[in-house]
Amino acid sequence: MSDKKNKMWDGRFGKPTDKLMEEFNNSLFVDKIFIEEDIFGSIAWAKALFGAGVLTKNECENIKKGLEKILEKHKNGKLESEFLPSDEDVHMAVERLLGVEIGDLAKKLHTGRSRNDQVATDFRLFAKNKRALLLKDLRKFLESVYNRALKDKNVIIAGYTHYQQAQPILLSHYWLSLFFLMKREYEKLENIDKISDVSPLGSGAIAGCGFAIDRFELAKNLGFSSPSENSIDGVASRDFVLDTLHNLASIGISLSRYAEDLIVWSTKEFGYVELDDAWSTGSSMMPQKKNPDSLELIRGKTGRLIGNYTRFAATLKGIGLSYFKDLQEDKEPLIDSFKTVEITLRVFSNVLDTLTINEKIIERTLDPFLLATDIADYLVKKGMPFREAHGVVGKIVAFCVEKNKKFNLLELKELKEFSPIFENDVLSFFDFKNALKHRDVYGAAGPISVEKQLSLAKEFLQNRG
Amino acid sequence: MSDKKNKMWDGRFGKPTDKLMEEFNNSLFVDKIFIEEDIFGSIAWAKALFGAGVLTKNECENIKKGLEKILEKHKNGKLESEFLPSDEDVHMAVERLLGVEIGDLAKKLHTGRSRNDQVATDFRLFAKNKRALLLKDLRKFLESVYNRALKDKNVIIAGYTHYQQAQPILLSHYWLSLFFLMKREYEKLENIDKISDVSPLGSGAIAGCGFAIDRFELAKNLGFSSPSENSIDGVASRDFVLDTLHNLASIGISLSRYAEDLIVWSTKEFGYVELDDAWSTGSSMMPQKKNPDSLELIRGKTGRLIGNYTRFAATLKGIGLSYFKDLQEDKEPLIDSFKTVEITLRVFSNVLDTLTINEKIIERTLDPFLLATDIADYLVKKGMPFREAHGVVGKIVAFCVEKNKKFNLLELKELKEFSPIFENDVLSFFDFKNALKHRDVYGAAGPISVEKQLSLAKEFLQNRG
Amino acid sequence: MSDKKNKMWDGRFGKPTDKLMEEFNNSLFVDKIFIEEDIFGSIAWAKALFGAGVLTKNECENIKKGLEKILEKHKNGKLESEFLPSDEDVHMAVERLLGVEIGDLAKKLHTGRSRNDQVATDFRLFAKNKRALLLKDLRKFLESVYNRALKDKNVIIAGYTHYQQAQPILLSHYWLSLFFLMKREYEKLENIDKISDVSPLGSGAIAGCGFAIDRFELAKNLGFSSPSENSIDGVASRDFVLDTLHNLASIGISLSRYAEDLIVWSTKEFGYVELDDAWSTGSSMMPQKKNPDSLELIRGKTGRLIGNYTRFAATLKGIGLSYFKDLQEDKEPLIDSFKTVEITLRVFSNVLDTLTINEKIIERTLDPFLLATDIADYLVKKGMPFREAHGVVGKIVAFCVEKNKKFNLLELKELKEFSPIFENDVLSFFDFKNALKHRDVYGAAGPISVEKQLSLAKEFLQNRG
Amino acid sequence: MSDKKNKMWDGRFGKPTDKLMEEFNNSLFVDKIFIEEDIFGSIAWAKALFGAGVLTKNECENIKKGLEKILEKHKNGKLESEFLPSDEDVHMAVERLLGVEIGDLAKKLHTGRSRNDQVATDFRLFAKNKRALLLKDLRKFLESVYNRALKDKNVIIAGYTHYQQAQPILLSHYWLSLFFLMKREYEKLENIDKISDVSPLGSGAIAGCGFAIDRFELAKNLGFSSPSENSIDGVASRDFVLDTLHNLASIGISLSRYAEDLIVWSTKEFGYVELDDAWSTGSSMMPQKKNPDSLELIRGKTGRLIGNYTRFAATLKGIGLSYFKDLQEDKEPLIDSFKTVEITLRVFSNVLDTLTINEKIIERTLDPFLLATDIADYLVKKGMPFREAHGVVGKIVAFCVEKNKKFNLLELKELKEFSPIFENDVLSFFDFKNALKHRDVYGAAGPISVEKQLSLAKEFLQNRG
Repeated sequence: MSDKKNKMWDGRFGKPTDKLMEEFNNSLFVDKIFIEEDIFGSIAWAKALFGAGVLTKNECENIKKGLEKILEKHKNGKLESEFLPSDEDVHMAVERLLGVEIGDLAKKLHTGRSRNDQVATDFRLFAKNKRALLLKDLRKFLESVYNRALKDKNVIIAGYTHYQQAQPILLSHYWLSLFFLMKREYEKLENIDKISDVSPLGSGAIAGCGFAIDRFELAKNLGFSSPSENSIDGVASRDFVLDTLHNLASIGISLSRYAEDLIVWSTKEFGYVELDDAWSTGSSMMPQKKNPDSLELIRGKTGRLIGNYTRFAATLKGIGLSYFKDLQEDKEPLIDSFKTVEITLRVFSNVLDTLTINEKIIERTLDPFLLATDIADYLVKKGMPFREAHGVVGKIVAFCVEKNKKFNLLELKELKEFSPIFENDVLSFFDFKNALKHRDVYGAAGPISVEKQLSLAKEFLQNRG
Repeated sequence: MSDKKNKMWDGRFGKPTDKLMEEFNNSLFVDKIFIEEDIFGSIAWAKALFGAGVLTKNECENIKKGLEKILEKHKNGKLESEFLPSDEDVHMAVERLLGVEIGDLAKKLHTGRSRNDQVATDFRLFAKNKRALLLKDLRKFLESVYNRALKDKNVIIAGYTHYQQAQPILLSHYWLSLFFLMKREYEKLENIDKISDVSPLGSGAIAGCGFAIDRFELAKNLGFSSPSENSIDGVASRDFVLDTLHNLASIGISLSRYAEDLIVWSTKEFGYVELDDAWSTGSSMMPQKKNPDSLELIRGKTGRLIGNYTRFAATLKGIGLSYFKDLQEDKEPLIDSFKTVEITLRVFSNVLDTLTINEKIIERTLDPFLLATDIADYLVKKGMPFREAHGVVGKIVAFCVEKNKKFNLLELKELKEFSPIFENDVLSFFDFKNALKHRDVYGAAGPISVEKQLSLAKEFLQNRG
Repeated sequence: MSDKKNKMWDGRFGKPTDKLMEEFNNSLFVDKIFIEEDIFGSIAWAKALFGAGVLTKNECENIKKGLEKILEKHKNGKLESEFLPSDEDVHMAVERLLGVEIGDLAKKLHTGRSRNDQVATDFRLFAKNKRALLLKDLRKFLESVYNRALKDKNVIIAGYTHYQQAQPILLSHYWLSLFFLMKREYEKLENIDKISDVSPLGSGAIAGCGFAIDRFELAKNLGFSSPSENSIDGVASRDFVLDTLHNLASIGISLSRYAEDLIVWSTKEFGYVELDDAWSTGSSMMPQKKNPDSLELIRGKTGRLIGNYTRFAATLKGIGLSYFKDLQEDKEPLIDSFKTVEITLRVFSNVLDTLTINEKIIERTLDPFLLATDIADYLVKKGMPFREAHGVVGKIVAFCVEKNKKFNLLELKELKEFSPIFENDVLSFFDFKNALKHRDVYGAAGPISVEKQLSLAKEFLQNRG
Repeated sequence: MSDKKNKMWDGRFGKPTDKLMEEFNNSLFVDKIFIEEDIFGSIAWAKALFGAGVLTKNECENIKKGLEKILEKHKNGKLESEFLPSDEDVHMAVERLLGVEIGDLAKKLHTGRSRNDQVATDFRLFAKNKRALLLKDLRKFLESVYNRALKDKNVIIAGYTHYQQAQPILLSHYWLSLFFLMKREYEKLENIDKISDVSPLGSGAIAGCGFAIDRFELAKNLGFSSPSENSIDGVASRDFVLDTLHNLASIGISLSRYAEDLIVWSTKEFGYVELDDAWSTGSSMMPQKKNPDSLELIRGKTGRLIGNYTRFAATLKGIGLSYFKDLQEDKEPLIDSFKTVEITLRVFSNVLDTLTINEKIIERTLDPFLLATDIADYLVKKGMPFREAHGVVGKIVAFCVEKNKKFNLLELKELKEFSPIFENDVLSFFDFKNALKHRDVYGAAGPISVEKQLSLAKEFLQNRG
């Protein structure tokens, strides 16, 4: 194959591309994922050429039919086998195959177009479609989180900082923190969608199209809001790739944090939750093992999302204008990050939907020290400055630790030795439910606030239904 | 210092923090940059406590006055020397110093508040302020780019892909590609601003505030649109940091690409531009050297922006809820990225403002092959399918290269040997100005399109004036 | 498939793995690349079990034969189709297929072994084999560089800093800088090979093997120098992955710098070199284009090497002991980086082997200012302090620039106006060849030094022949 | 300051550097950390110039004395205040200050030298010194680990995979896994030291020194093994920076994994260990809190080590030869990573030295299921194929879980229902100590193996004493 020239651009070349170079340069194995976008874009392009008087109505129709045949073959799984090693990329492959379908007319399709604007268009279309799917997956995930929050409204659990018991919260409140975090990711993805909703087609290689096409009409046909304002920017910019890679990495990082918690909560030592058998795996050696692999993979795959960002950022940095082949490296990371986040969201939804909450263990584990802040607040309410109250309660805690006493079982007499302010009414402060009632300002962990949050969450889901 | 307990939280501790641990744990050397935000936030907090009945009007006033004294000291450069090694962070330092100013009343300030929500608030305020400044720098930069584009409207320059001459463009068109790229960065920054415009204050350590403060009023006083919906999310989430780090990295990457071009254009071999002496440097050894160091630093510092992103992404990944000390690592990268992008934008503005364009060299360097696409388009207009026309012109190019002939000086007779379609009217296609006239669809490199772009650019600048 | 349990470890499980979880968890599509290592390791393991008295001689032989049949199928391309979706990974697939070959005896193979030590062993074997191949590719590349250096010994070229002409050098000297850089990469790869030459097999899941196998003998049979000293470290550590990822990234970064230079040198404006047609590509739109895509890909793919490092570093960070499923993410980046560097080295070798050096353009481009340092050195030799000489020559340069005079054509009279020290003998300093003769200390750019370097390079190649 | 030229290289410049450019370009605030290396290198350089006949004995001596005075000022903290904003870097600052000390003679020091080779030399010296210190810190850390392993020889603890109890191990065995991991990091650091033990001085700006200095002698005086073989490589290569950044990141990642474990082990729910008060911190709000901040910072700071690697890798990628100002970005990440790892190692040593091990809780937490593999091994020893044995025990586990029975309290009768092979002798297999005795192959978790590991560890410490 490599002793004869076989490229559509090799008129000026004295010899064919080396086989190793063909392999190195080939992007078809990656960009064939854009086959539908490429054909869709080419049909729109044919229409634009008709509008500019380059193609006749008839030619335009025939090109469209030819392209649709290729699409059909693709959908029937019959296209793959027709690709050749000399097909550098999906664009050249489709143009060649169009020639097979409709003969010489195919040679007119690339008029006024370059692979530079073509690939930018395909890629933006692909990313747009993927983002739309991702928004659905995100919404589904939010629903799972919302449902968990609905279910676990009555479970009081230790809230943690530094993995040390901090203050009592409703388990619902914990889930809702995940809800509002992921809601922001959803909104950010919508923003990216808006800002990259631009058609580069008609930018040519760098200088714009040499035929009088209507780029506004073309953009509309492609489903974009507007054409790119500048042809160099149209073919050269990849900030939409980096923006999306960031968004996907951010989603992964957010999920990884909750995965970490649930892995720790799944330990025998915590025992708070148990994953369903369908979302766990066992050990090839140790018969007793049941491992939360799903969550570990969610956490672990975050590394690849970060890596994909870094990878493309490093590639893009310092690459002059307008197009260099370095930019061919833009696709794999984004395709991989989309794929990773999609499955991650689906798996995590399922894990949440099927999770067993061991309410008894959760309740049993509540440490009375969780109420230390409430006791300090009690002293404040009695008039003691907070910093002083903190010190007093700190000393009580130290006393309990040393004497191995239960914080909530101290007698008033004992408390009074630390501060005479303590009165009988302090006893009601040693109660988890009561404590939660003191956490009902907007956004707090108590029951009224949680109800408010649930209704905000519901509203969001309804708005994006 | 380390043989006596000296922390505000050490009531329950049996011994003081080790000196090495104090050094390791200390964040004051970093977070003192938030001193103004911290004081501003504390004043708002005191008001909220007054609103909740925790402080009297008078107490609130006195706390405010005390804090303002500290702020004044800071502004007079007299605060730094009052910090102690045992001051872990800006929050504890301010609380301690407030005690020095107003005595025991200071002990009431931290009521219902935690450093967890306090630092989240300070940091969001800081980021908000920095973003506002950055938007100004960005606008200024856009103005410099716009002015360059205005000035260089009549310069025809080779447009490049792969650093090979591709098609003629107006130099203005090149600058405008930078304009529209950076305009998007501007808009993205505005989006981040909107989505992170939330007050975490009142989230407490994790469970929300135990006193009946009005978080909406508080958010308003702080200049935020609304309070965070969930207290865990309020203290734990750092997606706003990652979003901003990404935006800053993306700006840097965008600029690095144009810096690369200008470095290459500054070579003796290209000779297109010359940096002003004020923005160049020389060599300690080689007397003749004048180096475009400003542009190299712009390009090189992009690495640090990417690194700052990766750094915090790697830190945040897999960190459970709600707060861990790992999160203390959030500040340095963002502070550094802001600082880097700020100065980068300013320097680049100046480089552009003072850049010498060597029009003669630029004109002299225009290679007739730049018109190859126009000649192919000519054939298309005469009825030849584009792919064929591409092949014909490719062979003409090969012929010129082999025979060492000038593409634009070929005789019609010679052209006709490649295709009989060539007629006398082809000669006008061997003209750079003419070629540009064929590049006037929306967004293209020709004069009409460039005028349109200039007016769009002007409009944007006026809207963000 | 998912309504029946089908895993080898699911004795304790109440239901089968969900299909989506099977997909998420599956690593076969990646780790099947280890099929040869896995079989090789299993044969060695069978021998070790025989040595420990767990298997009879006969059983050991039959297992070996069964495994060899699977290997043969693999080599004939007939294995792939026998994999099932329920085969989680290459280990479980091979164990199942062994059962198909030899029946129940297959159930004995996994005695005393875990996938934890098995995959660590497979992966180390794979990396070891890949490193061996890479060392060959590196040596070949070094040979290409050496040959270039041999050929271009007489070409004087401008040496650059900041892409500004700095001092004259021999082109050979430039190539030799690449040689010595890559020689270090070669040596570093050898170091990694040594330090990771350890057999984890026999570490079990975490606690070591429960049968009296001889791990030293086993290590020897596997081709490793020694068994790992600690079973937790054996299964948990992945520093060898990160070390190798770094080495591969470093190779890529090193190559990217020379690729950048050659891309710039390939521009029409520099014109120093021209890539062979076989290693260039054209444009789909612009018939005249010939682009150095091979070099751009070499540069661009460096991003993925950096990304692969970051990716796995971020995954590994903060993962507790000993094994978590996060570690499954270790393979793809390393496989990808090996593959990328392999082809990169081969392509770059070919580019160098076939590169055209345009000696005339290179010579014509030499700027007399390249000799400025030599003129300053001349003044130093006449007794003027260097810093002063630098200033004098700097002024002469400024004078030439202003008056548009050639530095080397200044008359002695003119020079004397800048310093009376100048004498007639300065004229010989305005000569590139002469200048190079002053650059013959060890490692410098002159002909004697270059000969010395060539002999050092040759020696290295012979030692690793 | 910026209206007059003030640079040592500005002979050819028409105007001074802009103040903003001065700020942007300045590296003194970073590279002043090399002041000792710079002076040490300059003294060696003066000697080399004397050897080459450029300086007289006397001049050489006076330069040395002048430089030593500057060094003394530095050591007395009196140098900082003498720096000027126009001092671009430590090299120019020292040269200027030398002039203040010894007058015009100072102008001779920079003869034949460039900042390019000077900074490469300073930086390599600095890195060499830092690596030597780090090796000491690493050794100290290894000692702490070894001591822990010695102390905890008799503690049986659950070994974990996936944070699920896997098999019983000696706690010593756990610590020893850390020992052998960090021993490798130690050895890798030694390797880097060897491969970067090269003196670039005498490479000049790019082409080598123009005076007949003896680079071997010079290298020896600087403490390096040999001069660099090629002057371009000498000034341009920064692989030693990336190698060291990787090594430091790898150390951090390794430590972060053990930090994660200890954070989890410090939870109330695990309760295995308790950090000393001196290495913990409290909460500003919650009086009961005691948090393992030291470990969280160790884990969190790993992000910055990864970021420093990525940062410089991204900067270095694609930067042509030989020197560009981008390379100025090489110092901060390495300085920061050294500093971070140094303090991290010291803190972690202290945490280990003062850690309380709660043996009773550890013992109480041992789950009989930890012995499941031993029971399977028992069946294997009785003749059952392992895979079958795994299934049998898996079913027993499921039975225990369902019926809420203790695995180790099953009666023989019950066991026999799962397999008739079970005999009375199985009872001894339900014992943790016994189980460990079955883990005494080389590297395993049992007592004999652990003793062997301890002696290997001791030997290593003695060899690097």
